[in-house]
Amino acid sequence: MKKLVLTGAAGRLGSYLREPLSKLTEELVSSDIVEDIGKLYPGERYQRADLAEFAAIEALLEGADMVVHFGAIGDEAPFEQILGPNIVGAYNIWEAAHRHGLRRVVYASSIHAVGMHPKTERIGIDAPHRPDTFYGLAKCFAEDLGRLYWDKRGLESVHLRILSCAQVTSTRALGTWLSYEDLVQLVTRAIEAPVTECSVIYGVSDNDRVPVDNSGAQFLGFRPKDNAEMFATDILAAAEPADPGDLAQTRHGGPFAAIALGNSGLAVMDVIDDTKSVE
Amino acid sequence: MKKLVLTGAAGRLGSYLREPLSKLTEELVSSDIVEDIGKLYPGERYQRADLAEFAAIEALLEGADMVVHFGAIGDEAPFEQILGPNIVGAYNIWEAAHRHGLRRVVYASSIHAVGMHPKTERIGIDAPHRPDTFYGLAKCFAEDLGRLYWDKRGLESVHLRILSCAQVTSTRALGTWLSYEDLVQLVTRAIEAPVTECSVIYGVSDNDRVPVDNSGAQFLGFRPKDNAEMFATDILAAAEPADPGDLAQTRHGGPFAAIALGNSGLAVMDVIDDTKSVE
Amino acid sequence: MKKLVLTGAAGRLGSYLREPLSKLTEELVSSDIVEDIGKLYPGERYQRADLAEFAAIEALLEGADMVVHFGAIGDEAPFEQILGPNIVGAYNIWEAAHRHGLRRVVYASSIHAVGMHPKTERIGIDAPHRPDTFYGLAKCFAEDLGRLYWDKRGLESVHLRILSCAQVTSTRALGTWLSYEDLVQLVTRAIEAPVTECSVIYGVSDNDRVPVDNSGAQFLGFRPKDNAEMFATDILAAAEPADPGDLAQTRHGGPFAAIALGNSGLAVMDVIDDTKSVE
Amino acid sequence: MKKLVLTGAAGRLGSYLREPLSKLTEELVSSDIVEDIGKLYPGERYQRADLAEFAAIEALLEGADMVVHFGAIGDEAPFEQILGPNIVGAYNIWEAAHRHGLRRVVYASSIHAVGMHPKTERIGIDAPHRPDTFYGLAKCFAEDLGRLYWDKRGLESVHLRILSCAQVTSTRALGTWLSYEDLVQLVTRAIEAPVTECSVIYGVSDNDRVPVDNSGAQFLGFRPKDNAEMFATDILAAAEPADPGDLAQTRHGGPFAAIALGNSGLAVMDVIDDTKSVE
Amino acid sequence: MKKLVLTGAAGRLGSYLREPLSKLTEELVSSDIVEDIGKLYPGERYQRADLAEFAAIEALLEGADMVVHFGAIGDEAPFEQILGPNIVGAYNIWEAAHRHGLRRVVYASSIHAVGMHPKTERIGIDAPHRPDTFYGLAKCFAEDLGRLYWDKRGLESVHLRILSCAQVTSTRALGTWLSYEDLVQLVTRAIEAPVTECSVIYGVSDNDRVPVDNSGAQFLGFRPKDNAEMFATDILAAAEPADPGDLAQTRHGGPFAAIALGNSGLAVMDVIDDTKSVE
Amino acid sequence: MKKLVLTGAAGRLGSYLREPLSKLTEELVSSDIVEDIGKLYPGERYQRADLAEFAAIEALLEGADMVVHFGAIGDEAPFEQILGPNIVGAYNIWEAAHRHGLRRVVYASSIHAVGMHPKTERIGIDAPHRPDTFYGLAKCFAEDLGRLYWDKRGLESVHLRILSCAQVTSTRALGTWLSYEDLVQLVTRAIEAPVTECSVIYGVSDNDRVPVDNSGAQFLGFRPKDNAEMFATDILAAAEPADPGDLAQTRHGGPFAAIALGNSGLAVMDVIDDTKSVE
Repeated sequence: MKKLVLTGAAGRLGSYLREPLSKLTEELVSSDIVEDIGKLYPGERYQRADLAEFAAIEALLEGADMVVHFGAIGDEAPFEQILGPNIVGAYNIWEAAHRHGLRRVVYASSIHAVGMHPKTERIGIDAPHRPDTFYGLAKCFAEDLGRLYWDKRGLESVHLRILSCAQVTSTRALGTWLSYEDLVQLVTRAIEAPVTECSVIYGVSDNDRVPVDNSGAQFLGFRPKDNAEMFATDILAAAEPADPGDLAQTRHGGPFAAIALGNSGLAVMDVIDDTKSVE
Repeated sequence: MKKLVLTGAAGRLGSYLREPLSKLTEELVSSDIVEDIGKLYPGERYQRADLAEFAAIEALLEGADMVVHFGAIGDEAPFEQILGPNIVGAYNIWEAAHRHGLRRVVYASSIHAVGMHPKTERIGIDAPHRPDTFYGLAKCFAEDLGRLYWDKRGLESVHLRILSCAQVTSTRALGTWLSYEDLVQLVTRAIEAPVTECSVIYGVSDNDRVPVDNSGAQFLGFRPKDNAEMFATDILAAAEPADPGDLAQTRHGGPFAAIALGNSGLAVMDVIDDTKSVE
Repeated sequence: MKKLVLTGAAGRLGSYLREPLSKLTEELVSSDIVEDIGKLYPGERYQRADLAEFAAIEALLEGADMVVHFGAIGDEAPFEQILGPNIVGAYNIWEAAHRHGLRRVVYASSIHAVGMHPKTERIGIDAPHRPDTFYGLAKCFAEDLGRLYWDKRGLESVHLRILSCAQVTSTRALGTWLSYEDLVQLVTRAIEAPVTECSVIYGVSDNDRVPVDNSGAQFLGFRPKDNAEMFATDILAAAEPADPGDLAQTRHGGPFAAIALGNSGLAVMDVIDDTKSVE
Repeated sequence: MKKLVLTGAAGRLGSYLREPLSKLTEELVSSDIVEDIGKLYPGERYQRADLAEFAAIEALLEGADMVVHFGAIGDEAPFEQILGPNIVGAYNIWEAAHRHGLRRVVYASSIHAVGMHPKTERIGIDAPHRPDTFYGLAKCFAEDLGRLYWDKRGLESVHLRILSCAQVTSTRALGTWLSYEDLVQLVTRAIEAPVTECSVIYGVSDNDRVPVDNSGAQFLGFRPKDNAEMFATDILAAAEPADPGDLAQTRHGGPFAAIALGNSGLAVMDVIDDTKSVE
Repeated sequence: MKKLVLTGAAGRLGSYLREPLSKLTEELVSSDIVEDIGKLYPGERYQRADLAEFAAIEALLEGADMVVHFGAIGDEAPFEQILGPNIVGAYNIWEAAHRHGLRRVVYASSIHAVGMHPKTERIGIDAPHRPDTFYGLAKCFAEDLGRLYWDKRGLESVHLRILSCAQVTSTRALGTWLSYEDLVQLVTRAIEAPVTECSVIYGVSDNDRVPVDNSGAQFLGFRPKDNAEMFATDILAAAEPADPGDLAQTRHGGPFAAIALGNSGLAVMDVIDDTKSVE
Repeated sequence: MKKLVLTGAAGRLGSYLREPLSKLTEELVSSDIVEDIGKLYPGERYQRADLAEFAAIEALLEGADMVVHFGAIGDEAPFEQILGPNIVGAYNIWEAAHRHGLRRVVYASSIHAVGMHPKTERIGIDAPHRPDTFYGLAKCFAEDLGRLYWDKRGLESVHLRILSCAQVTSTRALGTWLSYEDLVQLVTRAIEAPVTECSVIYGVSDNDRVPVDNSGAQFLGFRPKDNAEMFATDILAAAEPADPGDLAQTRHGGPFAAIALGNSGLAVMDVIDDTKSVE
C-alpha cells in the first residue's frame, strides 16, 4: 500500500494505531483537529484537518488507498455538537474517498449503534440499529452511509463496532473488553482482507463473557487472543450486587444506555476517545 | 384529540391529508415552508415554519398531542440540500415533540430507506436499512432517531415506509401503488392505535403484485382496500420488455436504485413530494 | 363419529359449543362439575365429573373418539386452586384419553400461555411460552403435555390459543376478538382435520387489528369470517388515551399481564369462563 | 410476444394451457412426443420433439421469446426412465434456451420436490429440497439447473411447484387443489412479470386448508380465486378416518411420499401428466 | 454472599457441589429429604426439608440471597410421583424465594425438557419444549414458572439444561458429557453473573461431538474445559452398530426418548440423581 | 467393520485416504477407472469399476458396510461428460448400496454445490443449493439423492462439502483450506458416528478466515486442527489487489464462480481430482 490515512490520530485509540499502521504502508498520513501530535514514526506524516470541513478532508484523502476513520467526538454530547464531526464528518470522509477513488473505509463504529438491545439477547452483525445515545445515532448514520456508497458506488467499508477498548474496571468490561493487541489485529485484518464489500464486525476480545456474535464476519479472519477473564476474580470481588432494573446492567450499551441523551462526561469512558473536532 | 400538527402540508400528500386530519382533532395546525396554502378547512390553521430552524419547530408543536411529519425535500438531492430539512429537520421535530410532551410522531418514511434490497426478496418491516439515495439515507436516520427517542424518552412513533403514492404509470407501480384512500386509512390507524411504541409499516395498497410484507405490523389495523391490478392490462400492454440487469427493475427502490447519488429531477416521482424547505 | 366428550360444558364457551358439537357425533357427552346443565340437545347426555379425579375422567372418556377439553378454572387464581382442575385435570384428560385409545384432544389453551410477549411483536404459533399468570402457566403445562403424548404415544392434540371470546368492550378486543361463529368453525376444523399431530392455533377472528399470526397452522383450514372493526368507531370514541407504560396495553395478555399473580376477579373476563371445579 | 413454446402440449395440463397461451403470443409452438395433437388454435403450430434429443429441442426453441416447459414423464417411474425426458430433457431445454437467447423458462416443477416435509410444517418458497420420488428428484435437479443458468448466464426462470391440478377427490386435495383457472393465471403471471430472476412459487388455489406459503413470491402477482372448500362437505363425509402414521397423510407429497421409489401407476394422479417421452 | 441454599444436597450432583458452593458464601445451607448428609464443610449447615411441603421450603429459604435448586426425583417415574417434588416442589421454591426477596434461582433443568428433538438438529437455548418423559415435562414446567416469576415479579433464574453429568459409558455420552469440573464452573458462573434475567444454558463440556448450541448464553461466561473425546477410542471400539430407527440414538434425550412414559429404573442414569423426596 | 469401499481411489484425495481407511476395516476395496493403483496397503484390494456402469458398481459394493464415494470427474466439464460418472454414477452408488443393505454413503460433495452465494454471507449446512458449475450441479443432485434414499429407504449418508483440499496458493485458500490431516479426521468421524441420518458438513480446516459455518453438524464431532493462517504473510505479500467486482473474489465458489459453464482446465484445482471415468 502506498498511502494510508488515519483520522483521530491524536485520540486514545488513534495514538495506539499509529505505529502498527505505519508499518503497513509506504506513507501514513495521520490527522486530527489538534495542531501537533508530537514525534512521528518512520513513514508517518501529520496533516491537521477538521472533519466537518469538506475541503480539508478532500485534500487529506488525495492519492490514498484506504482511510482508517477513527476521528469523531468520542463521548455522548448534545446533538448540535455531534452533527458536525460525527455526521457531516462521516459524509465528508466517504464522499472524499469516492472522489479520490479510495478502495475502502475502515470505520470505528461502536456497540452504541445497537446499545439498547437487551444483554440477555446475543446480537450478531445483523442486529438492527438501536442506538443508545446521539453518539450511537451518528454511528448508525455512518453505517447506513457506508452501505449506500457500496451499493451505489462500489466503495468498500468495514464497520468495527468496538465494545470497550479501555482498562477493565467493571463487571460489564469482563465481557466487552477489546485489548489493544486485538484492536490492532482487527484493524489489520480489515485492511488486508482482499474483498470486504460493506461489512460489520464487533471489536471485542476472546472473553469468556462476550455478549455479541461475530460469526457472520469470520471470513475477515479476526481471531482475538486476549481474554478479560484474567481480571475476573478481582473485579467480581469488588463489585456491588447489580440491580436487574438498571439499564446500565441489562443493555448492551452499558452506561450509555442509562444516561440522559446529550449528557457528556461519563466517568468511565468505554468507547473511542480521539478527535475533539471544533465546529 | 385537541391539537394535531401536519408538516409538509403544501406538498402533494400533505395537501390530500389536510381534510381528513382536520376531522380527527379539534385543531389542525398545518405547516410548510410556503407563505400560504390557500383556503383552510374547518378547525385548520396554517403556521409557516422552516424545518431546519429549531425555534420555529418548537413553537409549532407547542401544546400538540401528535405530529404527522410529512415535510421534507421529496426527491433525491445533493447531501448538502438534504441535510437541513430532512436530517436536522427530523431531529428538530422529535426534540420539540419531546420537550412539549407529545405522545407520538407519525412519520412519512419511505421504501427508499430499504430500496437497494432485491425485489425478488420480499422484505418485512424488520428489513435492515439499505438506502438507495441520500433521500433514503435521511429516512434511515429518522427511523433510528425515532427508535432512540422511544427507547430513551418514551416518545412513540410510527414510520410509514410509503412505496408509490402517485398515479400508476409503470409496471413497478402495479406492485407499489398506495392509493389516496389507503394513505388516509394508514395515517388514521397510525394516529388512533392505542399504543404503537416505535413501529414500522409499509404504505402500499392491497395490490396483487405487492413486493413487501406488512404482517409484522398488523396490530396497527391497516387493511388497504385498493388494488392496482385494475390498471394492469393497459400498463402491461404498453410496457417495453424489462432488462433483468436494470437496477430500476430489480430493486425495491425502482428508479431511485438506478440513479446517481444526489441527482434530483426524476421524471416520474414515485415518492412523497411536499415541503420545499429552504436552508 | 360415535362419541364425543365435551368438558366445561356448563361454562360460557362450553354452553355455546354444545349444540354445534351435538351435530357432529352420534353421542355427545357433556360434562362439568355442576349437578345439572338443564335441557339437553338431541344426542346429548350429561355426565358430571371433577377434572381433578382421575377415576371420574377415565369413566367419562370410555369409548369416545375425541374429547373437546374446555373445562378448567377460567380466571387467574392462586396456584393451589389452579393445580387441581387445570394441571392435574389436564393430565387426567390426556392419560384417560390414551388408555381408552382416543384419537385426539381438542384443547382450549389461551393467549395467556404467551401473554407476556410485547404486542408490537407479532407472535406465530411457534412463539415460546411466556405465561402472564398461573392460569397461563397451566396452559403451558397442558401444551407441553400434549406434545409429550403425541411424541411418545401417538395421541393427537390441537391447542386452541383463544384470545378474547367475549363481547367487544375495549380497544384491545378490536384485535383479539373471537366471535362465537368463528369459535365454532375453529373447533369444528380441529375435529374434522384428517391428521393434526400436535398443533397449536390461535383462536381469533379476522380482525383488522389482529396481533397474532396463524399462518403456520393454515393446513387446519380455519378461516374466520368476523371482524371486530365493526365496533371500532364506538370503542375508539369512548376510549381513554392509553399509557404506553401500562402492561395491559403493551403485552399480548392484556389485563392478565398487568395483574398480580394469583389475583382472581378481573372485571372484564377475556378468556374462557367455564368449569368451576372443586378440589 | 412473438413466439412462445409449450412443451408437454399433449398432456393433461398442457392441453388446457394451449388456448390461453395462444392468445398471449403471435405464434404458439406446441410440442410433445406424440405425432399429432388434433385441431390447432389460431396462431398455434405443432412441432413434435423428444425432450431427450438435444437437436430436436434446439430446433424447437429457435427464435422463441420464452418456453413454458411442462413436458416430462408425469408419474413416478424407475430412475432409468426418468433420466432421459425429465433430467436430460430439462438440461436440453435450458441449454437450447440459452443458445437462442430466450428470456425465460416457465417450468412445471412440483410439490414432490419438497414432498417429504411434514405437512404440519408450513413450507415457504425457500423450503429445502426433500424429494419424495425419482419424479420429485428430477424436479429438484431442474430447479437447481435453473438457478445455475440464472446465476451464470442471466437466463430467467419461474419454477411452479404445482400441488394437485386435478379433480378434488380426497381430503388432501382440499388443501392442495389448483383449479384450471388458477393454473392459467399462474402461468400468465409468470410470463408477464417484467423481471423474475430465478423464482419459485407454489401452484395452489386459495383453499382454506392450503399447506404451503407463497408470500415470498407475491411480487409475481399470483392471486388465486378458487377454493376447494366447496367440496369439503362431501369429501369429508365420505372419508375414512386417517392414520396418523401414514406418510400419505402426514407429508406434503401425499401418496407419493408413501409409495416405493420407482413404482409408477398411482391410482389417483395428483401431478402433471403430459409428455410420454420415449428414450 | 451471606446465605446460599442448595437443595438435593444428598444427591449425586448435589454432593459434588457442596464443597465448592461452601466457598462462595458465608453460610451454605444444604438440604435434602434424608435425615443426615454426614460430615459438613466449613460454613455449611444441613436442614432437612421436603420439597413438596411449602412451609418447610419457606423456612429453608428465609434470609437467603440465592438458591441452587437441584432437588427432585432424578429419574423417570409415574406422573403421580413426579407431581409432588418436581412440580409442586418447583412452585414452592420460586414462591418462597419471592416471598423472602431472593435475587435468583439457579435451577437444574435438563436436556429432557427438549429431549424429543432429533439429534441431527442442533438445538439452541431457544429450542421449544419437547419433553421426553414426565421427568422432562416437570423441567418444562419449572422453566415456564421461572419465566413467569421474572416477568411478573423480577425474580431472576438460570435454567441449567444438564445433558449427562456421569461417567462416560456410551457413544451418546461422547457428545453429552458434563464433567464435574465443568459443572462447578457452570453453577459458579450462574451465581456470579451480575444480571441473568431468566436465562437458559446447556450443561455440557467442550466435547468434540457436542449436539447443542450454547452461543446464545455466552454472556454468562461458561467456557467448559473438558472434552469427552479422550474416551472415544475405547467407547467406539466397544460399541455395537447403532440402529438408525432407535429413538435412543436419534433424539437428544437418548434413552429417555425411547422408554415408556412413567417407567423408572434406567440402567444408565444420565441425569441428575439426588433428592428422593417422599410425598 | 468388515468391508469398506473407496471410490476414486486413484485420485488425489482418494490416494491420500487409502492408508488411513485401510486401518478402519478388515477389508478395504479401493476402486477407480484406471487399470492399476500400484502397491496396496495391508487389507486393501483393488477392483476396477466404471461409475457409470450399474453392474460394475453393484458388484463392487456387495457385502460392504459402507462406501466412501470420492469418484467423479473432479473438474468442471461439459454437461455431457458430467452426466455419466457424476450424476448417473451417484445414482448407481446409492442404488447399489441400497440393494446390498449398506449402512451409509460418505460422499465427497463440494462447496461448488453452493458456490454462487456471496462470500460476505456466511453459509451454514442448510444453505440452499446454488451451484456454480455443472460440476457443482451434480453435487446438488447427489445431495438430494442422498436425502431421498434416507427418507424413503433409511440409507444414511454424510455429504462432505469440501472447500479446498490442496496446497495454499491464494488469498481465498487462507479461508478455504482443508489440510490432509483434517480431511482424514473428517472422513473418519463421518464413518464412526453412530447415527448420521442424512447430514451435510463442510470440509474445511480451523482457519482464521473460514467463510462457512459447521456448527449445525457439530454432533458428528469434526474438530479440525490446522489453520492456513501460517501461510498468510507470504500469500498476502504476493497478492495483487483484488477486484470487488470479480466473482472469483466475491463468491464462495471462487474461480469456479467466475468461469464459463462447462469449461474445464482451471489452472489451480481447488477441488477433488480423482477418478477420470470414461463413458
